[in-house]
Amino acid sequence: MTSPPDDVLELLRQRGRHPDPSALDALMRGVAAAPEGLAGPEWVELATANDGLDAAPAPASRLAALRAELKRRDLAGFVVPRADEHQGEYVPRHSQRLAWLTGFSGSAGLAIVLTDRAAIFIDGRYTLAVRGQVDTDAFVPHQIPEQSPETWIAESLPRGGKLGFDPWLQTVDGHERFARACQRAGAEFVPVDSNPVDAVWPDRPPAPLAPVLPHPDEFAGESSATKRTRIAGAVKAKGADVALITAPDSIAWLLNVRGGDVPRTPFALGFALLHGDGHVDLFMDRRKVPDRTLAWLGNAVTLAPPDELGAALDMLGKVGKRVLIESATAPVWAATRLQTAGVALVRDADPVALPKACKNAVELEGIRRAHRRDGAAVSGFLGWLGRESKGGKLREIEASDRLQALRQQTGKLRDLSFDTISGAGPNGAIVHYRASEASQRTLEPGSLYLVDSGGQYRDGTTDITRTVAIGTPSPEMRDRFTRVLKGHIALAMARFPAGTTGSQLDALARYALWQAGLDYDHGTGHGVGAYLSVHEGPHRISKMPNNVALQPGMIVSNEPGYYKTDAYGIRIENLVAVREAKIDGADRRYLEFETLTLAPIDLACIEPGLLTDAERQWLDDYHRRVRETVGPEVDEATRAWLAEATRAVALR
Amino acid sequence: MTSPPDDVLELLRQRGRHPDPSALDALMRGVAAAPEGLAGPEWVELATANDGLDAAPAPASRLAALRAELKRRDLAGFVVPRADEHQGEYVPRHSQRLAWLTGFSGSAGLAIVLTDRAAIFIDGRYTLAVRGQVDTDAFVPHQIPEQSPETWIAESLPRGGKLGFDPWLQTVDGHERFARACQRAGAEFVPVDSNPVDAVWPDRPPAPLAPVLPHPDEFAGESSATKRTRIAGAVKAKGADVALITAPDSIAWLLNVRGGDVPRTPFALGFALLHGDGHVDLFMDRRKVPDRTLAWLGNAVTLAPPDELGAALDMLGKVGKRVLIESATAPVWAATRLQTAGVALVRDADPVALPKACKNAVELEGIRRAHRRDGAAVSGFLGWLGRESKGGKLREIEASDRLQALRQQTGKLRDLSFDTISGAGPNGAIVHYRASEASQRTLEPGSLYLVDSGGQYRDGTTDITRTVAIGTPSPEMRDRFTRVLKGHIALAMARFPAGTTGSQLDALARYALWQAGLDYDHGTGHGVGAYLSVHEGPHRISKMPNNVALQPGMIVSNEPGYYKTDAYGIRIENLVAVREAKIDGADRRYLEFETLTLAPIDLACIEPGLLTDAERQWLDDYHRRVRETVGPEVDEATRAWLAEATRAVALR
Repeated sequence: MTSPPDDVLELLRQRGRHPDPSALDALMRGVAAAPEGLAGPEWVELATANDGLDAAPAPASRLAALRAELKRRDLAGFVVPRADEHQGEYVPRHSQRLAWLTGFSGSAGLAIVLTDRAAIFIDGRYTLAVRGQVDTDAFVPHQIPEQSPETWIAESLPRGGKLGFDPWLQTVDGHERFARACQRAGAEFVPVDSNPVDAVWPDRPPAPLAPVLPHPDEFAGESSATKRTRIAGAVKAKGADVALITAPDSIAWLLNVRGGDVPRTPFALGFALLHGDGHVDLFMDRRKVPDRTLAWLGNAVTLAPPDELGAALDMLGKVGKRVLIESATAPVWAATRLQTAGVALVRDADPVALPKACKNAVELEGIRRAHRRDGAAVSGFLGWLGRESKGGKLREIEASDRLQALRQQTGKLRDLSFDTISGAGPNGAIVHYRASEASQRTLEPGSLYLVDSGGQYRDGTTDITRTVAIGTPSPEMRDRFTRVLKGHIALAMARFPAGTTGSQLDALARYALWQAGLDYDHGTGHGVGAYLSVHEGPHRISKMPNNVALQPGMIVSNEPGYYKTDAYGIRIENLVAVREAKIDGADRRYLEFETLTLAPIDLACIEPGLLTDAERQWLDDYHRRVRETVGPEVDEATRAWLAEATRAVALR
Repeated sequence: MTSPPDDVLELLRQRGRHPDPSALDALMRGVAAAPEGLAGPEWVELATANDGLDAAPAPASRLAALRAELKRRDLAGFVVPRADEHQGEYVPRHSQRLAWLTGFSGSAGLAIVLTDRAAIFIDGRYTLAVRGQVDTDAFVPHQIPEQSPETWIAESLPRGGKLGFDPWLQTVDGHERFARACQRAGAEFVPVDSNPVDAVWPDRPPAPLAPVLPHPDEFAGESSATKRTRIAGAVKAKGADVALITAPDSIAWLLNVRGGDVPRTPFALGFALLHGDGHVDLFMDRRKVPDRTLAWLGNAVTLAPPDELGAALDMLGKVGKRVLIESATAPVWAATRLQTAGVALVRDADPVALPKACKNAVELEGIRRAHRRDGAAVSGFLGWLGRESKGGKLREIEASDRLQALRQQTGKLRDLSFDTISGAGPNGAIVHYRASEASQRTLEPGSLYLVDSGGQYRDGTTDITRTVAIGTPSPEMRDRFTRVLKGHIALAMARFPAGTTGSQLDALARYALWQAGLDYDHGTGHGVGAYLSVHEGPHRISKMPNNVALQPGMIVSNEPGYYKTDAYGIRIENLVAVREAKIDGADRRYLEFETLTLAPIDLACIEPGLLTDAERQWLDDYHRRVRETVGPEVDEATRAWLAEATRAVALR
């Protein structure tokens, strides 16, 4: 690891700081472990460590070293989940133990290592990828949910053996399931004090140290103090005195701060205890919290080192507090520590999740602004694409680079909200596709091109998918596209009684496809944060049961699709906000969606005869809105293209 | 109570039986306690007892007597649910303790009697009715779910007090909730050995003794032996050796017998244990099982007196069996007895419910036949109604009597499948309306008439609702009717992937109403038995979450509606069967609905301009099918009417 460069030391000396060089070295290593943003370094940028995380099968020596370590600890096996302590979508590099051990880079997975065998559990998305990334002789792949780790444990563990787990990485609910499975095998599920993978990972990077910065009221719309007070009230109403918050986006929203410890998502990793009086104990590395942020957090937020969380939980037991935890996501470490301390647990949903999901008026104004800006960039891209793709030379990465450049040209982009999916032809049918030099295709005439992308702006997070005809689409493509569009419009136009969940609405988006014997294997809509995670709960629109009613201010995506393997993919995604519907003579309170995303839907892909009058009307109205809102924000060429791209649909 | 009439004794003597007169008296009292059927007595019919069950507030002396009894037993209070041991929709008269104690006759309710106060808990359907039927000074009404019995218990019970309950009437799940509530009050929830209400109910009728008769293979389509074997296999797959079956319709289906212990539903009350080898212990009063039924049940079914169930459960503990029970419906008495006997409980759904719901080919043929027959009767009625209602004199009871008479004229009707709802004008807006001399209205010009009815035939159970314009309907009525019809058609035409639940489809039936700010406060569809209960699970189509996928052979109602209080009610209900959908090029297995019910939908109520081409096509196709299928079964006058009533819809 490099020591801090002289100019950094000089900079700090100028500001009157005289840091201890070894502390500074540790700091710089943490900074280097934070992901790179697009907006340029918030902090001094250093070289990235060689941390052994390559996109390739891991050397067999790693598994051997782990087994030796397990033997030293008298463990029959060990569980290596993909998750970190926060169970989030992105895992910082120092927590990528599954990737280091196996080479697997997917967003969900689990390895179990026994002395004589090892298994890796992945879902249907990764059945192909796992064979390229993992030595499948060493780690035998199993597909969940058909083959469950619980069943494998019950069948494979030796009677009397101890299966170790890291209690920071196992959730309370997950722990219960695995412990039962061990019981069935006559084995034991035992927590370890320190993770044995860490003991054998020589170049393991440190925890990331991206700066934590204020998220001012002009974007947040509500002070942290009022948020903390009202949520503390909700915690009390659940019968608890204190809530343990383990989700970093909940902490970011609650305290009106943003960070950058993981890619594409502006939050800082940490834990928080919210007390009944609205006071928060924030367990977070002091080094990533600048003084101005400390001042911003104020007196009612106490910053403490992460390793003091345990003592704080013990103290809650001493004073007889009842503590709310979300058992689906909280580490079993915390639950065990609390129970040992004599604390009564109240298992309930993260109390921040629902208030965070319901955006306030200021947040909604910011989000609308972000969508106008983003829609102008996307429209510029689509116009360019229409001209550029005619040459028949354009490839996937050049296209997504252009889109990113246009977003950057807004001057407001902080980061992408996720890695762009830029899929031509058959690549569009791969739902979680990411173009590489090896995989990328040319946008060829007679094909469809699917691009799913989004930006992180301080005033809002965007997420949009458009599917564009390159040349002339086939009648089948137009039929499928129009059915997807019918589903999109059914949801976009829907009014529904207050109390309705996304699960109840999901079929509206699928009906037109179902009638033709077609469906798509992903959810119809996910929640989206306000300059936070592009995927957030607690609501969603999906086949999966979900008991959270849609409520005014919630953002959710509307993204039905259709995928023909080895041929083409179609998805039409806008973000929408839930709002009150004003209906004369309504028999109760109704809600509806306000479409936020503003960019043309490709008319060349539509078969107008398949649309009802009401659907055509919706499309024309939407396109008029796109033209009138985005038109003034774009250049001449794009404006001319937009006029044509948003024309009214003629019935033949 | 009368002693058995001479001619009955004479009849029995002729058959070589010489019964003990007192046993015969008890038998006759049980027979008299069974409900009257329409099909004439299966058994000798006797006078009904004066059992104190009048539709009027109960005398205050009953509550006083119960309180005196509670004092004798040192109880601070007692819970009186509406339910019997089987948690069914209908409760036999000897179990109508809530009605006897309070006068309340609704289909869901609960009283809690303390020494100084008493409460009755009812849902929104009965907030008006409870004030007419119950002395609300004695029993203070509380509306659930806003006011829950658990909260009331926690707030009202004296610390240290004992709240008694009858463990036969409390389910395992319900017991847990109430026990927790008592705990919160610092009180105790204690089972009683005998129900104190019974101790103070002087003329309490005996348990009903309706004859249990074979349900032959020509209707059942599968022998009881094969049913018992395959369900025993499913029980083993759940990790249990034996299943306790407490639902009478499950027992009737499993053993291919039918009875008549409660109204409108041809089953016998009893309990059953299904063993791993397919053997069944049936706990049922021997007196209601004729010899020919015993022979029909065969050697693998052992009939035992109901009071031997406890000893049988004890024995399961002695031999180390694991027993499956459905905790949502099984009496806590059974769970406690099993646990005391050392039995490991497997909590799972009644293993008969799902197989029973999936009708086999023979059952489906019977059900289609029943619907043709029933559709002819209903069409005859609708034709008559069209002529008769023109006079402006027709009233609700005369109409429903006529409909019943036409069903009886088929010669196949065993009973109605529920009390007919015959509602003119504003009465149609009362979802659970039952016409009385006092309430009934005349079918007036410019109004809507709603009739919801069904028949029990040995080959099937029907349930149909039609809403008919009397004279000329208003534009608003036609708009609302057409929206309800659009919902009905959306569901009728729906294709959906295997694995889809009714909860996922529910919104399809409501969308057109929602768009106008309108909805209905009942489920969209319920399961229907094969000559069994007109309401059965485990599937349904409703806003309520339900995780049971729709499967081929399931019958479900399709009955969206709209109700304008004090004005009119609209409901369009057909029964449909789930079947495989054959779709060229489908990407997976799809299912769809076959509409079973055959009777015209009133064209006078439809605004054709609100229908899409596809919806008009569905309606025309359906009406053609009605005409072609039912036409040959009806008289000349009805056939002529049918031709007109099923004409193709013209667009203006």
